[in-house]
Amino acid sequence: MHEFDIIAKYLNLNTTPRKDVLCGVGDDCALLKVPQGQRLAVSMDTLIGDVHFPADADAKAIAHKAIAVNLSDLAACSAEPAWLTLSLSMPQADEKWLAAFSEGLSEMVEHFAVQLVGGDTCRGPLSITVQAHGLVPQKVFAQRSGAKAGDLVCVTGPLGDAALGLLHYKGELAASGADADYLLQRYLRPYPRVAAGIAMRGRASAAIDISDGLLADVQHLSNASGVGVVIRWDQIPLSDAARAVADQQLIKRAVLTGGDDYELCFTVPEDQFEATQKALAMVGEKCIPIGRISGKPGVRVVSDEGDINLEKMGYRHF
Amino acid sequence: MHEFDIIAKYLNLNTTPRKDVLCGVGDDCALLKVPQGQRLAVSMDTLIGDVHFPADADAKAIAHKAIAVNLSDLAACSAEPAWLTLSLSMPQADEKWLAAFSEGLSEMVEHFAVQLVGGDTCRGPLSITVQAHGLVPQKVFAQRSGAKAGDLVCVTGPLGDAALGLLHYKGELAASGADADYLLQRYLRPYPRVAAGIAMRGRASAAIDISDGLLADVQHLSNASGVGVVIRWDQIPLSDAARAVADQQLIKRAVLTGGDDYELCFTVPEDQFEATQKALAMVGEKCIPIGRISGKPGVRVVSDEGDINLEKMGYRHF
Repeated sequence: MHEFDIIAKYLNLNTTPRKDVLCGVGDDCALLKVPQGQRLAVSMDTLIGDVHFPADADAKAIAHKAIAVNLSDLAACSAEPAWLTLSLSMPQADEKWLAAFSEGLSEMVEHFAVQLVGGDTCRGPLSITVQAHGLVPQKVFAQRSGAKAGDLVCVTGPLGDAALGLLHYKGELAASGADADYLLQRYLRPYPRVAAGIAMRGRASAAIDISDGLLADVQHLSNASGVGVVIRWDQIPLSDAARAVADQQLIKRAVLTGGDDYELCFTVPEDQFEATQKALAMVGEKCIPIGRISGKPGVRVVSDEGDINLEKMGYRHF
Repeated sequence: MHEFDIIAKYLNLNTTPRKDVLCGVGDDCALLKVPQGQRLAVSMDTLIGDVHFPADADAKAIAHKAIAVNLSDLAACSAEPAWLTLSLSMPQADEKWLAAFSEGLSEMVEHFAVQLVGGDTCRGPLSITVQAHGLVPQKVFAQRSGAKAGDLVCVTGPLGDAALGLLHYKGELAASGADADYLLQRYLRPYPRVAAGIAMRGRASAAIDISDGLLADVQHLSNASGVGVVIRWDQIPLSDAARAVADQQLIKRAVLTGGDDYELCFTVPEDQFEATQKALAMVGEKCIPIGRISGKPGVRVVSDEGDINLEKMGYRHF
C-alpha cells in the first residue's frame, strides 16, 4: 500500500472540521488561524513500540495514548487543544491495524474537538510522533515555575494505577478481574485532564502532568520554581484497585515513582483553593490536596511513621 | 546519559532567541506568539536511519537534512520559518554524535533565524521527526491547487543531483572528485529554497517542493489543480556534475524520478513571469521555466525526439 493511499484512507479522518483550519491534510503545509489575543502552545511526544507501549497492544489504544500524552501536556499549561500533526512509522502497512489505529484517532479527535491537520507516514520501526497545538491567553499559561512557598500541591486523580497496570500486563502482578481491567486501561488509555487544565486558569500557580512519576515531576516543578515540596503520603489518592494490591512496598513504589498516570499535579495559593476545587468540580474534575510547597529545597514524603526513604523507592535525586 | 541531561547539553541550543518565543525548551509546552494578520503554516517530516539517510552519515549532515526538508515544505507554501520542534530517537546516547548533531542544528537554526522550542528525546531506532512552523499572510499562501492552463512551470535549480549523489554513495555510480563531492552534498545537505518561496508570494499560482521526484511532484500539483503538465526535457536545468555522467538513461531517470532535490517547482501566469524572475534574482534565487500547464490532464515530457516514455523511467501514474 502506497503512502498516499494510507493517508487518504486512514489518516485523512472524516471528523468534524474546524473553522480555524484553512488548509489541512494534503498540501506541503497545513495553514492554521490563531485567534487574536491567543497564544499558541505546542508539545511533541514520541511513543515507540515496546518502549512506551507494548507493540502488540490494540492499535486503537496506541492511537489513544499517542494523542492523550500530548493533550496532557497542553492540559498542564491550561491550553485548549486545537490541532494535531502525526508522524507514523510502521514496519508494514497492515490494513487491519491501520483501520483500528484510524478509529482510535477519530474517537480522540472528536472527543476533544481537535483536527488532525498533517504529518508523515513511512516504513520503519513502529513509532508514533504527535504534536498537539493548543490555544491559551498568555497571562493564564500555567508554567512549572510559578509555585510559591505555602501553596497547596494538588492532583486531579489517583496515582500509581498505570505502573500497576504495566506490571499486570507483564505478568508481574496478579490482579483480579475488574481490578486488572481497570489498571490496564489506566496504563493503555490515559485520560488527559484537559478540562481541569482549562478550569484552573488564573488560579493554579504552577502545573505539570505526571508522566515520569510523582516524585520526578514534582521535582521538575520545584526545581523550576526554586522551592521545596512536602507531600503527605496518606493524602495521595489511590484507586480501589491499587488499594487491593497486597504488597505495600510495591504500591508505594508505583504511586511515587511509576509514571504514565497523566494526572495533573498543580499548585494553588491557599486562598484560591476552594474556588479552584469548585471550578474543577463544575467540569467534573477533582482537585485533591496532597501536600504543600515549602521554602526549603528538596522533595519529602511524610507519613504517620515519619519520612519515607525515597532512595529505597528507586528514586534518583537530580 | 539521562534524557534531561541530553536536552540540557545538546538540544537547548545556545542560539539567538526570538522575541515571539514566550516559553521555549523545558516546560510541558512551548508558548509562541503568532503576529496579528499572519497565519501559521506547519509541516512535519520524519527521517529514519537507512531509509531516508545513511545511518552512518555525519550527524551534522543528518541534523541539516532533518531541518532542511521541513523548511523546504514551508518554502513551498511561501511561509517564513519561525520555530522548530524536534523528536530524536537514537539507539544510545553517543556524546560525540550528539555534539555533531547539535552543531548541525545550531548552524541551520542561526542561518534561517528560527528557534528550536521543544520536542522529545528517547531511546530507540535512529529516527528524527521535525516540525517546522512558519508565518504567512493567508492570501499569499501558495498551495498545490492554484495552477491554471497556460501558466509556466518553473523550478529553482538543477534536478537529479540528489539521486545521483545517493547512487554514488551506494557505490553504484563512479563520479570523479569534485563532481562526486558536489552530488553527495546535494543528497546529504539539501538547501531549502526559503528565500525563493517568500519572493514568489502573490505571483506563483501553485507551488510544491521536489521531494518525491519531478514527475511525482508535478503529478501532485496537477492533480490538486485539475490540470495537465507538459515539460520540455531540454529546458530542465542540469548541473555540470550531472551532465558529466555518461549513462544518458541514468541521468533521465535521476532527473525525472529521483527525489530529494528539494528545489521548488512552481507555476506562474505568463504575464507574471518576468516580475517573478526578477523578484527571485533579487534574493539570489533562480526561476527557470521547464514547461507549461495544459488543460489536458496528464504529465508529458517532450524532447526533440518526441515524448519520453515515462513508464520506462520507472514512473508509476497514479
